[in-house]
Amino acid sequence: MTSSTTLEFSEMLIEGAKEVFETMIFMSIEKSPDATAPLGDNILGTITFTGDVQGCIGICCSKSCATSIAANMMGLDNASELSQEEIADAVGEVANMVMGSFKARLLSNYNTINVSIPSVVSGANLDTMLIDGQNRAVVPVMIDEHQARLMLLTKAKS
Amino acid sequence: MTSSTTLEFSEMLIEGAKEVFETMIFMSIEKSPDATAPLGDNILGTITFTGDVQGCIGICCSKSCATSIAANMMGLDNASELSQEEIADAVGEVANMVMGSFKARLLSNYNTINVSIPSVVSGANLDTMLIDGQNRAVVPVMIDEHQARLMLLTKAKS
Repeated sequence: MTSSTTLEFSEMLIEGAKEVFETMIFMSIEKSPDATAPLGDNILGTITFTGDVQGCIGICCSKSCATSIAANMMGLDNASELSQEEIADAVGEVANMVMGSFKARLLSNYNTINVSIPSVVSGANLDTMLIDGQNRAVVPVMIDEHQARLMLLTKAKS
Repeated sequence: MTSSTTLEFSEMLIEGAKEVFETMIFMSIEKSPDATAPLGDNILGTITFTGDVQGCIGICCSKSCATSIAANMMGLDNASELSQEEIADAVGEVANMVMGSFKARLLSNYNTINVSIPSVVSGANLDTMLIDGQNRAVVPVMIDEHQARLMLLTKAKS
C-alpha cells in the first residue's frame, strides 16, 4: 500500500467527478484555469470518509448551477418548479456519487474506505477549512457554463 | 427500540452540548429565546452519523465565539496568536465531542450509531439544508455572551 499525494488525490477526484457528470448527470465538468472562487450565494455538498485514508470531498457551486444539476438528474425541462429541498437533495446526491467514483479509485491504493452520508450547506463565500493535520486541494472547474469548485481534504492514517 | 421525536433529539443534543461545554470547554451554553440567526462571517462544524438513525449535527458560531472556544480548549489567555487552522480544529473538535455526548444519549434508544469525522466550513449566512427526507431542528443558543446555533438533521432507518 503506497500513500497517494495530494496531487494524485485531486486527479482521482476530477476523474471520478467526470465519470459521474458525463454518465449520470449529462453535463460536462472540466478543470478551469480560472481559480477565482465563485462569490455570492453558493451551495456546498460534502461527504466525509474514514479508513486507511480519511477526509472529506466537497462540491461547491452557485444556486443556478445546482438547479441545472437537479433538473438534469430528474430529467426536467422546467427547473423553475424545483423546491429548495429537491435542489439540496441533488447536490447531496452528486457528492455521494462523486465519492463513490473517487472511492473506487482510492481502492487501488488503500484497502479500507468507509463513506458516511452527505450534508449540504448554503451560504455566501463558502470555504472548507483545514483541520486535524489534513492536506487540502481545491480544483476550480466549469460545469457546463457554470464556475464551480471541487474540494478535497485528506489525511493518511497515522 | 422506540424512535425518538425531533423534539427529543434536540433535547438530547442540547444536554450533550451542555455536558461538553461545562466539563471540557469551561463555557456556558444555554438555549436562547432569540431565534435570530447570527449573521456575518460564521464558522460551521458538522459531523455526520449513520446506523439505526442517521443524520448530522452542527454548531454554527461567529469567528469571535470560535476563537474564545479555541482559547478555552487550549488554556490560552491570549487568543490573538491562534491561527485559522487552530480555530477550525477547535470547532471540529467541539462538533466531535458534542457528537460523542449526543451519541451516548441516542444509545438509550438505538443500538447502532457510527460516527464519521467532523468537517468545518466558513462563510456568511451559513445554513444546513434538508436532504433525503430528514427532519431538522435548529436550537438558538448563547455560548457565554455569543449567539450561536446548534443544528440537527435526522432520519430514521427505513
